[in-house]
Amino acid sequence: MDPDTLRQLLEQVASGQLAVEQAQSRLQYDDLGFAKLDYQRAVRQGIPEVVWGPGKTPAQIGILLARLAQQHPVAMATRIEPGVFQEITQQLPQVRYDPVARICALGEPLPQPGVVLVVTAGTSDIPVAQEAALTAELCGFTVKRLWDVGVSGIHRLLENHDLLRTGDVLIVVAGLEGALPSVVGGLVAVPVIAVPTSIGYGASFGGVAALLGMLNSCASGLGVVNIDNGFGAAMLAARILHLSNREKQTSS
Amino acid sequence: MDPDTLRQLLEQVASGQLAVEQAQSRLQYDDLGFAKLDYQRAVRQGIPEVVWGPGKTPAQIGILLARLAQQHPVAMATRIEPGVFQEITQQLPQVRYDPVARICALGEPLPQPGVVLVVTAGTSDIPVAQEAALTAELCGFTVKRLWDVGVSGIHRLLENHDLLRTGDVLIVVAGLEGALPSVVGGLVAVPVIAVPTSIGYGASFGGVAALLGMLNSCASGLGVVNIDNGFGAAMLAARILHLSNREKQTSS
Amino acid sequence: MDPDTLRQLLEQVASGQLAVEQAQSRLQYDDLGFAKLDYQRAVRQGIPEVVWGPGKTPAQIGILLARLAQQHPVAMATRIEPGVFQEITQQLPQVRYDPVARICALGEPLPQPGVVLVVTAGTSDIPVAQEAALTAELCGFTVKRLWDVGVSGIHRLLENHDLLRTGDVLIVVAGLEGALPSVVGGLVAVPVIAVPTSIGYGASFGGVAALLGMLNSCASGLGVVNIDNGFGAAMLAARILHLSNREKQTSS
Amino acid sequence: MDPDTLRQLLEQVASGQLAVEQAQSRLQYDDLGFAKLDYQRAVRQGIPEVVWGPGKTPAQIGILLARLAQQHPVAMATRIEPGVFQEITQQLPQVRYDPVARICALGEPLPQPGVVLVVTAGTSDIPVAQEAALTAELCGFTVKRLWDVGVSGIHRLLENHDLLRTGDVLIVVAGLEGALPSVVGGLVAVPVIAVPTSIGYGASFGGVAALLGMLNSCASGLGVVNIDNGFGAAMLAARILHLSNREKQTSS
Amino acid sequence: MDPDTLRQLLEQVASGQLAVEQAQSRLQYDDLGFAKLDYQRAVRQGIPEVVWGPGKTPAQIGILLARLAQQHPVAMATRIEPGVFQEITQQLPQVRYDPVARICALGEPLPQPGVVLVVTAGTSDIPVAQEAALTAELCGFTVKRLWDVGVSGIHRLLENHDLLRTGDVLIVVAGLEGALPSVVGGLVAVPVIAVPTSIGYGASFGGVAALLGMLNSCASGLGVVNIDNGFGAAMLAARILHLSNREKQTSS
Amino acid sequence: MDPDTLRQLLEQVASGQLAVEQAQSRLQYDDLGFAKLDYQRAVRQGIPEVVWGPGKTPAQIGILLARLAQQHPVAMATRIEPGVFQEITQQLPQVRYDPVARICALGEPLPQPGVVLVVTAGTSDIPVAQEAALTAELCGFTVKRLWDVGVSGIHRLLENHDLLRTGDVLIVVAGLEGALPSVVGGLVAVPVIAVPTSIGYGASFGGVAALLGMLNSCASGLGVVNIDNGFGAAMLAARILHLSNREKQTSS
Amino acid sequence: MDPDTLRQLLEQVASGQLAVEQAQSRLQYDDLGFAKLDYQRAVRQGIPEVVWGPGKTPAQIGILLARLAQQHPVAMATRIEPGVFQEITQQLPQVRYDPVARICALGEPLPQPGVVLVVTAGTSDIPVAQEAALTAELCGFTVKRLWDVGVSGIHRLLENHDLLRTGDVLIVVAGLEGALPSVVGGLVAVPVIAVPTSIGYGASFGGVAALLGMLNSCASGLGVVNIDNGFGAAMLAARILHLSNREKQTSS
Amino acid sequence: MDPDTLRQLLEQVASGQLAVEQAQSRLQYDDLGFAKLDYQRAVRQGIPEVVWGPGKTPAQIGILLARLAQQHPVAMATRIEPGVFQEITQQLPQVRYDPVARICALGEPLPQPGVVLVVTAGTSDIPVAQEAALTAELCGFTVKRLWDVGVSGIHRLLENHDLLRTGDVLIVVAGLEGALPSVVGGLVAVPVIAVPTSIGYGASFGGVAALLGMLNSCASGLGVVNIDNGFGAAMLAARILHLSNREKQTSS
Repeated sequence: MDPDTLRQLLEQVASGQLAVEQAQSRLQYDDLGFAKLDYQRAVRQGIPEVVWGPGKTPAQIGILLARLAQQHPVAMATRIEPGVFQEITQQLPQVRYDPVARICALGEPLPQPGVVLVVTAGTSDIPVAQEAALTAELCGFTVKRLWDVGVSGIHRLLENHDLLRTGDVLIVVAGLEGALPSVVGGLVAVPVIAVPTSIGYGASFGGVAALLGMLNSCASGLGVVNIDNGFGAAMLAARILHLSNREKQTSS
Repeated sequence: MDPDTLRQLLEQVASGQLAVEQAQSRLQYDDLGFAKLDYQRAVRQGIPEVVWGPGKTPAQIGILLARLAQQHPVAMATRIEPGVFQEITQQLPQVRYDPVARICALGEPLPQPGVVLVVTAGTSDIPVAQEAALTAELCGFTVKRLWDVGVSGIHRLLENHDLLRTGDVLIVVAGLEGALPSVVGGLVAVPVIAVPTSIGYGASFGGVAALLGMLNSCASGLGVVNIDNGFGAAMLAARILHLSNREKQTSS
Repeated sequence: MDPDTLRQLLEQVASGQLAVEQAQSRLQYDDLGFAKLDYQRAVRQGIPEVVWGPGKTPAQIGILLARLAQQHPVAMATRIEPGVFQEITQQLPQVRYDPVARICALGEPLPQPGVVLVVTAGTSDIPVAQEAALTAELCGFTVKRLWDVGVSGIHRLLENHDLLRTGDVLIVVAGLEGALPSVVGGLVAVPVIAVPTSIGYGASFGGVAALLGMLNSCASGLGVVNIDNGFGAAMLAARILHLSNREKQTSS
Repeated sequence: MDPDTLRQLLEQVASGQLAVEQAQSRLQYDDLGFAKLDYQRAVRQGIPEVVWGPGKTPAQIGILLARLAQQHPVAMATRIEPGVFQEITQQLPQVRYDPVARICALGEPLPQPGVVLVVTAGTSDIPVAQEAALTAELCGFTVKRLWDVGVSGIHRLLENHDLLRTGDVLIVVAGLEGALPSVVGGLVAVPVIAVPTSIGYGASFGGVAALLGMLNSCASGLGVVNIDNGFGAAMLAARILHLSNREKQTSS
Repeated sequence: MDPDTLRQLLEQVASGQLAVEQAQSRLQYDDLGFAKLDYQRAVRQGIPEVVWGPGKTPAQIGILLARLAQQHPVAMATRIEPGVFQEITQQLPQVRYDPVARICALGEPLPQPGVVLVVTAGTSDIPVAQEAALTAELCGFTVKRLWDVGVSGIHRLLENHDLLRTGDVLIVVAGLEGALPSVVGGLVAVPVIAVPTSIGYGASFGGVAALLGMLNSCASGLGVVNIDNGFGAAMLAARILHLSNREKQTSS
Repeated sequence: MDPDTLRQLLEQVASGQLAVEQAQSRLQYDDLGFAKLDYQRAVRQGIPEVVWGPGKTPAQIGILLARLAQQHPVAMATRIEPGVFQEITQQLPQVRYDPVARICALGEPLPQPGVVLVVTAGTSDIPVAQEAALTAELCGFTVKRLWDVGVSGIHRLLENHDLLRTGDVLIVVAGLEGALPSVVGGLVAVPVIAVPTSIGYGASFGGVAALLGMLNSCASGLGVVNIDNGFGAAMLAARILHLSNREKQTSS
Repeated sequence: MDPDTLRQLLEQVASGQLAVEQAQSRLQYDDLGFAKLDYQRAVRQGIPEVVWGPGKTPAQIGILLARLAQQHPVAMATRIEPGVFQEITQQLPQVRYDPVARICALGEPLPQPGVVLVVTAGTSDIPVAQEAALTAELCGFTVKRLWDVGVSGIHRLLENHDLLRTGDVLIVVAGLEGALPSVVGGLVAVPVIAVPTSIGYGASFGGVAALLGMLNSCASGLGVVNIDNGFGAAMLAARILHLSNREKQTSS
Repeated sequence: MDPDTLRQLLEQVASGQLAVEQAQSRLQYDDLGFAKLDYQRAVRQGIPEVVWGPGKTPAQIGILLARLAQQHPVAMATRIEPGVFQEITQQLPQVRYDPVARICALGEPLPQPGVVLVVTAGTSDIPVAQEAALTAELCGFTVKRLWDVGVSGIHRLLENHDLLRTGDVLIVVAGLEGALPSVVGGLVAVPVIAVPTSIGYGASFGGVAALLGMLNSCASGLGVVNIDNGFGAAMLAARILHLSNREKQTSS
């Protein structure tokens, strides 16, 4: 909110033209015309508002990142293609970029307790897994990675059983038939977040086969997110770990 | 073919009105009006023509079974509901019935070399698995059964690894996400036939989730059949074992 | 496992015919032929193996419940129609039944810390919500209920904002367009589990519209389960609260 | 219709070769061979015939716009890509172009009573919303815009409740789960037109998730249009406001 | 709200324990536990809250109708099967029932200006059309009906052109290919609401063919509702006519 | 049209209140309120208007059949279940019924030149084929039948090559994969009408697999109709043979 | 077949090594390795084998066209993009090309009796219509064209009623909701071939909406072909007109 | 595994820090970080692990091929576009490439008994068929090819009946309606593997029509693989022939 608008708003409050409540609400988000940044939600949820790249111009993304960076230790944008990053970087030279995860970021997160273990069925699933992993790191969590342990070579997974047990939350990323979360869900007791990917061809229908596999899993208690939604998986992990950390603080 | 028609046909051959070739072709199948039983195909394929029950009246099924039993050691009909069986049995008292597999049969098969191992992910998949198992037994093969070893409790499957190795062909039956054939396909080298079942609800879409899971399996070299098609799976197993038995005879 | 089989197994271990490891694995589950009850998984996951009713006979369900009740304080079966319950109760008179949730249960849970708040968009969503609520109660958690706060009358939801904040985990149940989890997900910071229901008609396609709505939610960090899968939602809540409780114990 | 054809037609009427009625019908539309412009419909409906760009050559679009501009104060074409506009402008230099709405237009509308409020769930929905807004402006209505008030930050919408009440018709544009019209439909009593957009990925299926969400809305009385059909939404708004304006004139 | 709860609430307001605003909000809806009746919405929208029958018990429907009838001149419930009506009528003997529209109603509407013309493509579409017509009548509007004028006999429609012109809003109901709204939309200038029905078989997919036909109509400015949603069509007509009536009052 | 209405109409013509043209149009169809019977279309097309049973009451079907029988030598209704026929027959005792084709009929057709050959892939496809065959017979054409010549026993089809060549139009009826029209279309030069049936299970999706097979046929020049639409196939055959018969008359 | 292969074949016949029948069959098609040209089918069907372009190299298309041109007066290839035509023309300079229909052709057809009227709903449907029209012309039929008479401006169609009556067969091409064949089918008695096009966006799903509209048409007796399959429509028209012409010859 | 890691691992075994079993398991696969190559599976299955190209960088593919070539006589990668091959060849100059099958390979296979006959319906199906054929050749089997014998010209197939009988396993590749495996399955007794291709347009839905056709085949005992999955078909053929060869060895 620019200074003039802010002063005007406060004067309206002072004069009784604007109720205190309405003023508070207007201060909760930043109206840029093409977007309304919701700072209050970030406070409510302990998760920063994040810029979703598709359908936005590089200029819009740059403005939004800059605004977010003024309010939060970390600002980030997802689904950023290399060419878009090139344009943003001219506006905001300090922006970092991970080309595998396709994430732009500014700032450094405060470390948070909690280990997120990100697991993939195949090598081709790594970009989605990396979107999840980097997002979780930008939230401040410790992240471990276990790549290419798909179920057709089950011994590769079982061999890493000790590693599986070190995760507080598991994010399991798989395309094709999406069976890995079912097996992992039977091996661990912690929350398992299942991420279908669009890896496959023919009757994979762009990830639908994997999505349906995960929704119909014979392992109970999986939380499923949208196809290729590594970011959303990390957000669910963050909600879960924030709850645990709150409990930890409460009880200690 | 009734005697009159047959005599007429042979007279036509004798008089040159009908070519030998055409006569042979007409003798290859039995035209009942509502159906044409293809005995020749049975000879060609080493598999009896089987009556598929739905959309046929009990009387039609009875006639077809009786005709088949005249030509083959075993005659069978699939997808027979108990009430339909009751009606058939009045026409053909010697017919046997398996209410789980929903199969009617007449006659005893000649034993054939070859072990078919039928595996299910869950208890609810048993009827489809039993259709496969009973069909394979009616073809004369040895059948072994392994029920309820779904992937969410992977140790139940791995514990039975020795049993898995005893099958010459494996028929793996699973509903829900249909992941079991992917794991089994990675554990054995023999042919694996994947049978999706309609067991599930919601986004299982009557077995589509399991079907897609099997078509997109990360284990290569699975042969998939239609949803709930235990019969077809046994037929594919029969084709495979006939080939092996032929090879065995050839080489010995 | 019956005594003879057990003695035989132990003798094999004693004689070296069976490796210790294999014996342990066989003792981990109970092989009833038609089913293999996985006690070890219950230990691994802190969640009892639960009997899913469809496709099983009342006799099978009764046997499984009785076995589970020998090993766990609570045994339960889901998707049980009233007629099926009537048959089970003749075998197991002590079984309780909730006709709205369609759950059979035996035994009393040990109370666990953690509040699960179950919310519905409409009155017609209550059966699925009740399946989630009763399952969570049978796991020992405290459950609160908030019915009929769908988004077309948004003030009914906002009025209950204080209640929303009391849940450690929220299970949000909605049919039709399935929009409620998106709004709730923006109001609270704790984990939100979204359950689509098959309530609707025409282009709701048996809950697909609600499922897609939840998978594509503009609120990030929702965990989605299958259509009408109230049980699975409670299982995910249990995994999350077990983690929190573990953290609480660790830190105190 | 070119002069020669017209004279020929009138001579046929004069000579009795052509019935008056048929002549009238032929004068109602302009047959260009590749297209038949229906002027009469415009008169019937109070809405100009509009050129839909896809599948037409720039030359065809230019001819159609020129013809329409001879008959109506405003001529417009939708779904015009920048390159197509470049080619049209060489033929018709006076054509205006809005690159966000992808609309070409000629002429100025006569102002009409009625306020159309166009609302979007997100920033990425703006192009579709702008197609609706510009079309409504070209029909002569007053248009107000409210961008980025999606339901996951519900306070952004509620804060603008006063603005919502100023619209005679609301056009609500949303991708992803398409939940915004449900909430808006519960807040206002005027007609709400719901426009799903193709914004999203994975299980949004190019806007199908949003479309289904709107068709299954728990708010009753929404009129839904095709995915990304901002133009159609404005046309429905025009039909509604024409009715209101007619009523106003009738009653005054 | 029962008297005790009301008095308690007012005492809390009097003592300052409850803010005036919160008290107002609580008085806006009636919390029955299994449902929250939103009276305020009715006031906001000029449309009564209506009970949707499926998934509710007859007892619940009866309670809701009785409550609504205390607040509104008309109370109604949709999708009520004859057997359900029989049970409701024991509880509420004064309830009326239309077996074609499957609507229960109490009370008499105040007449409202505005003519709703309901049109069907075939005889089989009448039940859905009747749901729309009766709902509009219960809102107080004048309703006209035109049945069986499907496009394969186009002269039946054109012959009734004068009748078509008498509607202020048209509700066009069609199954099969759902083409009628396209033709009607080209003949009239007033708002056209398109209602697909599930009438058809095979590739009609329960009304999906008709729904897609209407969403893709070559006539612009149609508002589409869900399959078989005659009620929703009437609600949209009511929103439109309320706007016109408001304009009429304003201008007079 | 009842006598009073007719006299009234003619008086209006006499007095100039009704234009000749409008009177003609009103005489072209019979308005029964719930239906508008289009006699003129029958004249235009040489095909009687036929009553489609579903969604109509037995009383409505009876009235429509009686009216049609007054205008045409043959009146018929399709998709009539046995119980519905029982009720119609009390109203119209002279109605005939074919329980396989589910067709009711009155009157005898005038013989027409032209041979329609109806072919099925399996025994279960006979009801749909019989609907086509009986409809063609009621149009007066000669009908031949060839049942159960599906492509998996290709010799059964080739053996009947001579019979195939006797049809002027072929109607080929198949469920499952719907491959028969592709083979037949390559064997004959006359028009081939492909009718998919809903025979099958699992991934046949109620006939969708067969429908897609026929639409994608490698044999060019097939005309496809809706799933199970034997009636529509016969109507297309009638249009084709009417053209041929017209040509024959013209040229002779 | 090259001379050496031919001589070899004939010598085998002479020596009795090859049966006459087999030799005849081998001479019926031309085996090019990558393709088998079926001359006999052309003789059987009166329709030349046509080259379908997609998935073939320009060189393969050129060879196939050249071979066909040796056997038939006309050789043609469909779905040829301009760049592919450029490559073919270097090999076969005499090939003609229609860029709208995307058809390559060699030779001139012999005129055949019969008028094919091709009708489109919109301007954007012309390329598919032109594929049908040009194919029919290459078969030797007279072709008439009526463009842009979609049902939302029904008077444009009715005005051309006289033209509609001049077609022996009508090919009706429409995208969007595909309603035009339903109206046309009610206006004419001759065969109507319905061609859905992929023109549209959003919920048109690449022509599926139009396809479903045509399959579910309320006008009976339409023959539907695949989406965008103008060629197949012309082939069906050719089969129909060949039958009529045969009848004409027979009767005269 | 690099020497240091290997020595470290063996020292851990020697010192008792690592169990023999765990060491064996780690030696069974090669952990490259981004991928885990499973040598043991190759031993178990007699089929080399193969690199699936999509979603992997050329560098990753090169590394994986090189590693595989150290362990197996043949290493191969599928779905390799020409540009990717160009990059791999700079790293691994000895790699061969088949541009039609899009396969890269290193090394020469050991000949294996068994004939795989690959059959296509059309010329456009050759690339998928060639992927199957080349894979089978790289496994050491004899491969025969029969191209362009689709069912609309059934004599082309029947003429090659002798060739069909020479295959031990048949791989039948077809797009469009996918009918060829049904006919072939009725002609031969050996295992038939059905491969749908994405060849087609419109309602072929990228191969779904062919896939459904094969899953619903009226010929029993087909094994279906994913759309365009020539590789998977060859792997199933290899499993089947390995079984036969094992039987041959056992019996001789």
